Amino acid sequence: MARWQTGARDRLEQAALALFLEQGFAETTVPQIAAHAGLTTRTFFRHFADKREVLFAGEESVPTLVQHLMAQASPDVRPVPLIISQLGPFAETVFGQRHDVLGIRHRIINTDQGLRERELQKKANLRASIVDGFVQRGTDELAATLAADLAMMVLGAALAEWLNSDGSQPISDVVAKVLAAFEQLAAEVNLQDLA
Amino acid sequence: MARWQTGARDRLEQAALALFLEQGFAETTVPQIAAHAGLTTRTFFRHFADKREVLFAGEESVPTLVQHLMAQASPDVRPVPLIISQLGPFAETVFGQRHDVLGIRHRIINTDQGLRERELQKKANLRASIVDGFVQRGTDELAATLAADLAMMVLGAALAEWLNSDGSQPISDVVAKVLAAFEQLAAEVNLQDLA
Repeated sequence: MARWQTGARDRLEQAALALFLEQGFAETTVPQIAAHAGLTTRTFFRHFADKREVLFAGEESVPTLVQHLMAQASPDVRPVPLIISQLGPFAETVFGQRHDVLGIRHRIINTDQGLRERELQKKANLRASIVDGFVQRGTDELAATLAADLAMMVLGAALAEWLNSDGSQPISDVVAKVLAAFEQLAAEVNLQDLA
Repeated sequence: MARWQTGARDRLEQAALALFLEQGFAETTVPQIAAHAGLTTRTFFRHFADKREVLFAGEESVPTLVQHLMAQASPDVRPVPLIISQLGPFAETVFGQRHDVLGIRHRIINTDQGLRERELQKKANLRASIVDGFVQRGTDELAATLAADLAMMVLGAALAEWLNSDGSQPISDVVAKVLAAFEQLAAEVNLQDLA
Protein backbone atom coordinates (compact mmCIF):
# COMPACT_ATOMS: atom_id res chain seq x y z
CA MET A 1 0.00 0.00 0.00
CA ALA A 2 1.58 3.18 -1.23
CA ARG A 3 -0.19 5.34 1.33
CA TRP A 4 0.97 3.30 4.33
CA GLN A 5 3.35 5.98 5.42
CA THR A 6 0.71 8.71 5.72
CA GLY A 7 -0.98 9.11 9.10
CA ALA A 8 -3.91 7.03 10.25
CA ARG A 9 -6.13 10.09 10.44
CA ASP A 10 -5.56 11.01 6.79
CA ARG A 11 -6.11 7.42 5.69
CA LEU A 12 -9.37 7.22 7.62
CA GLU A 13 -10.53 10.49 6.05
CA GLN A 14 -9.68 9.29 2.54
CA ALA A 15 -11.39 5.94 3.14
CA ALA A 16 -14.51 7.63 4.53
CA LEU A 17 -14.79 10.08 1.63
CA ALA A 18 -14.33 7.29 -0.92
CA LEU A 19 -17.04 5.16 0.69
CA PHE A 20 -19.48 8.05 1.26
CA LEU A 21 -19.15 8.96 -2.39
CA GLU A 22 -19.38 5.40 -3.68
CA GLN A 23 -22.13 3.90 -1.58
CA GLY A 24 -23.73 6.89 0.17
CA PHE A 25 -23.23 8.48 3.57
CA ALA A 26 -26.17 6.73 5.30
CA GLU A 27 -25.09 3.32 3.98
CA THR A 28 -21.49 3.60 5.18
CA THR A 29 -20.49 2.22 8.60
CA VAL A 30 -17.48 2.92 10.79
CA PRO A 31 -16.23 -0.71 10.52
CA GLN A 32 -16.33 -0.36 6.71
CA ILE A 33 -14.31 2.86 6.86
CA ALA A 34 -11.75 1.34 9.21
CA ALA A 35 -11.45 -1.81 7.07
CA HIS A 36 -11.09 0.27 3.89
CA ALA A 37 -8.23 2.17 5.55
CA GLY A 38 -6.65 -1.07 6.80
CA LEU A 39 -7.18 -0.01 10.44
CA THR A 40 -9.34 -1.05 13.38
CA THR A 41 -12.56 0.65 14.47
CA ARG A 42 -10.76 1.39 17.73
CA THR A 43 -8.22 3.45 15.82
CA PHE A 44 -11.12 5.18 14.07
CA PHE A 45 -12.66 6.21 17.38
CA ARG A 46 -9.32 7.52 18.61
CA HIS A 47 -9.52 10.09 15.80
CA PHE A 48 -13.23 10.78 15.25
CA ALA A 49 -16.36 10.72 17.43
CA ASP A 50 -18.45 9.25 14.61
CA LYS A 51 -18.54 8.95 10.81
CA ARG A 52 -20.18 12.37 10.42
CA GLU A 53 -17.34 14.11 12.23
CA VAL A 54 -14.87 12.92 9.59
CA LEU A 55 -16.47 15.58 7.37
CA PHE A 56 -16.14 18.26 10.04
CA ALA A 57 -12.71 17.45 11.40
CA GLY A 58 -10.54 20.42 12.27
CA GLU A 59 -13.36 22.91 12.49
CA GLU A 60 -12.74 23.46 16.19
CA SER A 61 -9.50 25.22 15.26
CA VAL A 62 -11.28 27.78 13.06
CA PRO A 63 -12.57 30.11 15.81
CA THR A 64 -9.03 30.17 17.25
CA LEU A 65 -7.65 31.12 13.86
CA VAL A 66 -10.28 33.86 13.48
CA GLN A 67 -9.42 35.21 16.93
CA HIS A 68 -5.74 35.15 16.08
CA LEU A 69 -6.17 36.97 12.75
CA MET A 70 -8.45 39.58 14.31
CA ALA A 71 -6.26 40.12 17.35
CA GLN A 72 -3.04 40.57 15.41
CA ALA A 73 -4.49 43.46 13.37
CA SER A 74 -3.87 46.90 14.82
CA PRO A 75 -6.85 48.06 16.96
CA ASP A 76 -7.51 51.05 14.72
CA VAL A 77 -8.07 48.96 11.57
CA ARG A 78 -11.76 49.28 10.65
CA PRO A 79 -13.94 46.19 10.02
CA VAL A 80 -14.01 46.21 6.23
CA PRO A 81 -10.27 46.85 5.74
CA LEU A 82 -9.67 44.05 8.23
CA ILE A 83 -11.83 41.69 6.17
CA ILE A 84 -10.13 42.75 2.95
CA SER A 85 -6.65 42.15 4.30
CA GLN A 86 -7.33 38.95 6.25
CA LEU A 87 -9.88 36.98 4.24
CA GLY A 88 -7.41 35.74 1.62
CA PRO A 89 -4.86 34.45 4.16
CA PHE A 90 -7.72 32.93 6.17
CA ALA A 91 -9.06 31.08 3.12
CA GLU A 92 -5.57 29.86 2.23
CA THR A 93 -5.05 28.49 5.73
CA VAL A 94 -8.43 26.79 5.98
CA PHE A 95 -9.00 25.61 2.40
CA GLY A 96 -5.75 26.22 0.53
CA GLN A 97 -4.23 22.82 -0.15
CA ARG A 98 -7.46 20.83 -0.10
CA HIS A 99 -9.27 21.68 -3.34
CA ASP A 100 -10.05 18.11 -4.39
CA VAL A 101 -11.01 16.80 -0.97
CA LEU A 102 -13.24 19.84 -0.38
CA GLY A 103 -15.00 19.36 -3.71
CA ILE A 104 -15.80 15.75 -2.80
CA ARG A 105 -16.83 16.78 0.70
CA HIS A 106 -19.19 19.41 -0.75
CA ARG A 107 -20.85 16.81 -2.99
CA ILE A 108 -21.32 14.39 -0.10
CA ILE A 109 -22.81 17.04 2.19
CA ASN A 110 -25.37 17.98 -0.43
CA THR A 111 -26.72 14.42 -0.50
CA ASP A 112 -27.91 14.35 3.11
CA GLN A 113 -30.24 16.63 5.05
CA GLY A 114 -28.54 15.98 8.39
CA LEU A 115 -25.16 16.85 6.89
CA ARG A 116 -26.51 20.01 5.28
CA GLU A 117 -27.90 21.09 8.64
CA ARG A 118 -24.56 20.31 10.31
CA GLU A 119 -22.75 22.35 7.64
CA LEU A 120 -25.04 25.31 8.28
CA GLN A 121 -24.27 24.99 11.97
CA LYS A 122 -20.58 25.09 11.11
CA LYS A 123 -21.09 28.27 9.08
CA ALA A 124 -23.18 29.79 11.87
CA ASN A 125 -20.33 29.08 14.31
CA LEU A 126 -17.79 30.73 12.02
CA ARG A 127 -20.07 33.74 11.55
CA ALA A 128 -20.59 33.99 15.33
CA SER A 129 -16.84 33.93 15.95
CA ILE A 130 -16.36 36.78 13.45
CA VAL A 131 -19.18 38.84 15.03
CA ASP A 132 -17.61 38.18 18.40
CA GLY A 133 -14.17 39.23 17.17
CA PHE A 134 -15.53 42.54 15.88
CA VAL A 135 -17.50 43.23 19.06
CA GLN A 136 -14.30 42.59 21.06
CA ARG A 137 -12.55 45.13 18.85
CA GLY A 138 -15.20 47.69 19.87
CA THR A 139 -17.48 47.53 16.81
CA ASP A 140 -21.16 47.99 17.68
CA GLU A 141 -23.32 44.92 17.28
CA LEU A 142 -25.21 45.84 14.11
CA ALA A 143 -22.01 46.80 12.27
CA ALA A 144 -20.29 43.66 13.61
CA THR A 145 -23.14 41.52 12.29
CA LEU A 146 -23.09 43.15 8.87
CA ALA A 147 -19.31 42.92 8.65
CA ALA A 148 -19.44 39.23 9.54
CA ASP A 149 -22.19 38.65 6.97
CA LEU A 150 -20.07 40.47 4.44
CA ALA A 151 -17.07 38.26 5.20
CA MET A 152 -19.24 35.13 4.95
CA MET A 153 -20.74 36.34 1.68
CA VAL A 154 -17.37 37.01 0.03
CA LEU A 155 -15.95 33.77 1.40
CA GLY A 156 -18.99 31.79 0.22
CA ALA A 157 -18.89 33.25 -3.29
CA ALA A 158 -15.12 32.69 -3.56
CA LEU A 159 -15.31 29.13 -2.26
CA ALA A 160 -18.13 28.22 -4.66
CA GLU A 161 -16.21 29.64 -7.61
CA TRP A 162 -12.98 27.97 -6.56
CA LEU A 163 -14.61 24.57 -6.04
CA ASN A 164 -16.22 24.86 -9.48
CA SER A 165 -12.82 25.54 -11.02
CA ASP A 166 -9.96 23.09 -11.49
CA GLY A 167 -8.26 24.57 -8.44
CA SER A 168 -5.13 25.67 -10.24
CA GLN A 169 -5.66 29.25 -9.06
CA PRO A 170 -4.98 29.92 -5.37
CA ILE A 171 -8.20 30.54 -3.43
CA SER A 172 -6.74 33.85 -2.21
CA ASP A 173 -6.76 35.05 -5.84
CA VAL A 174 -10.44 34.11 -6.12
CA VAL A 175 -11.13 35.95 -2.85
CA ALA A 176 -9.39 39.02 -4.31
CA LYS A 177 -11.52 38.79 -7.45
CA VAL A 178 -14.75 38.58 -5.44
CA LEU A 179 -13.61 41.50 -3.25
CA ALA A 180 -12.98 43.55 -6.41
CA ALA A 181 -16.52 42.78 -7.61
CA PHE A 182 -17.84 43.74 -4.20
CA GLU A 183 -15.85 46.97 -4.28
CA GLN A 184 -17.64 47.93 -7.48
CA LEU A 185 -21.01 47.28 -5.86
CA ALA A 186 -20.03 49.14 -2.70
CA ALA A 187 -19.04 52.17 -4.76
CA GLU A 188 -22.70 52.42 -5.78
CA VAL A 189 -24.01 52.69 -2.24
CA ASN A 190 -25.63 56.06 -1.83
CA LEU A 191 -28.49 56.40 0.54
CA GLN A 192 -29.92 59.27 -1.48
CA ASP A 193 -31.55 56.39 -3.33
CA LEU A 194 -33.67 55.77 -0.28
CA ALA A 195 -35.53 59.04 -0.74
CA MET B 1 -66.99 32.63 18.27
CA ALA B 2 -65.78 36.12 17.73
CA ARG B 3 -63.51 35.18 14.85
CA TRP B 4 -66.20 33.39 12.84
CA GLN B 5 -66.35 36.16 10.31
CA THR B 6 -62.67 35.94 9.33
CA GLY B 7 -61.78 33.59 6.48
CA ALA B 8 -61.24 29.88 6.94
CA ARG B 9 -57.62 30.18 5.84
CA ASP B 10 -56.78 32.75 8.51
CA ARG B 11 -58.54 30.72 11.16
CA LEU B 12 -56.65 27.58 10.18
CA GLU B 13 -53.36 29.48 10.32
CA GLN B 14 -54.14 30.89 13.76
CA ALA B 15 -55.22 27.48 15.06
CA ALA B 16 -52.08 25.81 13.66
CA LEU B 17 -49.72 28.39 15.17
CA ALA B 18 -51.43 28.16 18.54
CA LEU B 19 -51.17 24.36 18.60
CA PHE B 20 -47.59 24.23 17.25
CA LEU B 21 -46.55 26.63 19.99
CA GLU B 22 -48.50 24.92 22.75
CA GLN B 23 -47.89 21.24 22.09
CA GLY B 24 -45.08 21.20 19.52
CA PHE B 25 -45.01 20.96 15.72
CA ALA B 26 -44.38 17.20 15.55
CA GLU B 27 -47.16 16.46 18.03
CA THR B 28 -49.82 18.45 16.19
CA THR B 29 -52.08 16.76 13.62
CA VAL B 30 -54.21 18.20 10.84
CA PRO B 31 -57.47 16.96 12.46
CA GLN B 32 -56.47 18.81 15.66
CA ILE B 33 -55.83 22.02 13.72
CA ALA B 34 -59.12 21.75 11.87
CA ALA B 35 -61.04 21.03 15.09
CA HIS B 36 -59.33 23.92 16.87
CA ALA B 37 -60.45 26.22 14.04
CA GLY B 38 -64.00 24.76 14.10
CA LEU B 39 -63.58 23.42 10.55
CA THR B 40 -63.23 20.04 8.83
CA THR B 41 -59.98 18.43 7.71
CA ARG B 42 -61.42 18.62 4.18
CA THR B 43 -61.52 22.39 4.47
CA PHE B 44 -57.93 22.31 5.78
CA PHE B 45 -56.75 20.43 2.70
CA ARG B 46 -58.53 22.87 0.41
CA HIS B 47 -56.18 25.54 1.76
CA PHE B 48 -52.92 23.74 2.62
CA ALA B 49 -51.08 20.66 1.32
CA ASP B 50 -50.05 19.64 4.86
CA LYS B 51 -49.44 21.13 8.31
CA ARG B 52 -45.93 22.26 7.43
CA GLU B 53 -47.17 24.38 4.55
CA VAL B 54 -49.27 26.48 6.93
CA LEU B 55 -45.93 28.02 7.97
CA PHE B 56 -44.89 28.64 4.37
CA ALA B 57 -48.17 29.82 2.90
CA GLY B 58 -47.94 32.66 0.42
CA GLU B 59 -44.25 32.18 -0.36
CA GLU B 60 -45.04 31.26 -3.98
CA SER B 61 -46.05 34.90 -4.54
CA VAL B 62 -42.64 36.25 -3.42
CA PRO B 63 -40.66 35.56 -6.64
CA THR B 64 -43.45 37.29 -8.59
CA LEU B 65 -43.19 40.31 -6.30
CA VAL B 66 -39.39 40.35 -6.71
CA GLN B 67 -39.76 40.19 -10.49
CA HIS B 68 -42.30 43.00 -10.39
CA LEU B 69 -40.15 45.29 -8.22
CA MET B 70 -37.05 44.61 -10.32
CA ALA B 71 -38.85 45.04 -13.64
CA GLN B 72 -40.51 48.34 -12.73
CA ALA B 73 -37.16 49.99 -11.97
CA SER B 74 -35.58 51.83 -14.88
CA PRO B 75 -33.07 49.59 -16.73
CA ASP B 76 -30.19 51.95 -15.98
CA VAL B 77 -30.58 51.72 -12.20
CA ARG B 78 -27.55 49.87 -10.85
CA PRO B 79 -27.88 46.84 -8.50
CA VAL B 80 -27.10 48.51 -5.18
CA PRO B 81 -29.30 51.59 -5.73
CA LEU B 82 -32.07 49.20 -6.78
CA ILE B 83 -31.70 47.28 -3.52
CA ILE B 84 -31.61 50.49 -1.48
CA SER B 85 -34.78 51.83 -3.05
CA GLN B 86 -36.80 48.59 -3.19
CA LEU B 87 -35.87 46.62 -0.08
CA GLY B 88 -38.00 48.69 2.31
CA PRO B 89 -41.18 48.47 0.20
CA PHE B 90 -40.50 44.76 -0.36
CA ALA B 91 -40.18 44.13 3.39
CA GLU B 92 -43.36 46.11 4.07
CA THR B 93 -45.29 44.09 1.50
CA VAL B 94 -44.03 40.71 2.66
CA PHE B 95 -43.74 41.21 6.43
CA GLY B 96 -45.33 44.58 7.21
CA GLN B 97 -48.56 43.83 9.03
CA ARG B 98 -47.57 40.47 10.48
CA HIS B 99 -45.08 41.23 13.27
CA ASP B 100 -46.71 39.05 15.94
CA VAL B 101 -47.52 36.11 13.69
CA LEU B 102 -43.99 36.16 12.24
CA GLY B 103 -42.43 36.21 15.70
CA ILE B 104 -44.41 33.11 16.67
CA ARG B 105 -43.61 31.47 13.34
CA HIS B 106 -39.91 32.13 13.87
CA ARG B 107 -40.01 30.48 17.31
CA ILE B 108 -41.82 27.42 15.94
CA ILE B 109 -39.42 26.98 13.05
CA ASN B 110 -36.45 27.02 15.40
CA THR B 111 -37.82 24.01 17.28
CA ASP B 112 -37.68 21.57 14.37
CA GLN B 113 -34.83 20.51 12.09
CA GLY B 114 -37.11 19.78 9.12
CA LEU B 115 -38.69 23.22 9.44
CA ARG B 116 -35.32 24.93 9.68
CA GLU B 117 -34.23 23.15 6.51
CA ARG B 118 -37.49 24.15 4.79
CA GLU B 119 -36.94 27.77 5.88
CA LEU B 120 -33.43 27.73 4.44
CA GLN B 121 -34.89 26.42 1.19
CA LYS B 122 -37.34 29.31 1.20
CA LYS B 123 -34.47 31.77 1.68
CA ALA B 124 -32.46 30.05 -1.07
CA ASN B 125 -35.46 30.44 -3.41
CA LEU B 126 -35.77 34.13 -2.62
CA ARG B 127 -32.04 34.62 -3.13
CA ALA B 128 -32.19 32.74 -6.46
CA SER B 129 -35.06 34.92 -7.67
CA ILE B 130 -33.05 38.06 -6.85
CA VAL B 131 -29.94 36.70 -8.61
CA ASP B 132 -32.14 35.87 -11.58
CA GLY B 133 -33.70 39.33 -11.62
CA PHE B 134 -30.26 40.99 -11.71
CA VAL B 135 -28.98 38.66 -14.42
CA GLN B 136 -32.07 39.51 -16.50
CA ARG B 137 -31.26 43.18 -16.04
CA GLY B 138 -27.82 42.50 -17.55
CA THR B 139 -25.71 42.25 -14.38
CA ASP B 140 -22.91 39.69 -14.65
CA GLU B 141 -23.32 36.60 -12.54
CA LEU B 142 -20.74 37.30 -9.84
CA ALA B 143 -22.06 40.82 -9.24
CA ALA B 144 -25.65 39.51 -9.34
CA THR B 145 -24.77 36.90 -6.69
CA LEU B 146 -23.08 39.43 -4.43
CA ALA B 147 -25.93 41.93 -4.84
CA ALA B 148 -28.47 39.24 -3.96
CA ASP B 149 -26.38 38.21 -0.93
CA LEU B 150 -26.23 41.84 0.09
CA ALA B 151 -30.01 42.17 -0.16
CA MET B 152 -30.48 38.96 1.86
CA MET B 153 -27.97 40.14 4.47
CA VAL B 154 -29.66 43.52 4.99
CA LEU B 155 -33.10 41.91 4.98
CA GLY B 156 -32.01 39.22 7.46
CA ALA B 157 -30.44 41.74 9.86
CA ALA B 158 -33.49 44.03 9.64
CA LEU B 159 -35.97 41.19 10.13
CA ALA B 160 -34.08 39.84 13.16
CA GLU B 161 -33.97 43.29 14.75
CA TRP B 162 -37.63 43.97 13.97
CA LEU B 163 -38.80 40.62 15.34
CA ASN B 164 -36.80 41.26 18.52
CA SER B 165 -38.54 44.62 18.93
CA ASP B 166 -42.15 45.26 19.90
CA GLY B 167 -42.96 45.89 16.25
CA SER B 168 -44.16 49.45 16.77
CA GLN B 169 -41.59 50.72 14.22
CA PRO B 170 -42.34 49.93 10.56
CA ILE B 171 -39.96 47.31 9.20
CA SER B 172 -39.04 49.70 6.37
CA ASP B 173 -37.53 52.04 9.03
CA VAL B 174 -35.46 49.16 10.38
CA VAL B 175 -34.34 48.33 6.82
CA ALA B 176 -33.28 51.97 6.40
CA LYS B 177 -31.31 51.82 9.65
CA VAL B 178 -29.49 48.65 8.57
CA LEU B 179 -28.78 50.18 5.15
CA ALA B 180 -27.28 53.24 6.88
CA ALA B 181 -25.00 50.94 8.94
CA PHE B 182 -24.05 49.11 5.77
CA GLU B 183 -23.32 52.42 4.02
CA GLN B 184 -20.78 53.22 6.73
CA LEU B 185 -19.11 49.85 6.21
CA ALA B 186 -19.15 50.21 2.45
CA ALA B 187 -17.45 53.60 2.72
CA GLU B 188 -14.44 51.77 4.17
CA VAL B 189 -14.00 49.48 1.19
CA ASN B 190 -10.67 50.21 -0.35
CA LEU B 191 -8.80 47.45 -2.06
CA GLN B 192 -5.49 49.12 -1.30
CA ASP B 193 -5.88 47.13 1.92
CA LEU B 194 -5.31 43.98 -0.09
CA ALA B 195 -1.74 44.95 -0.82
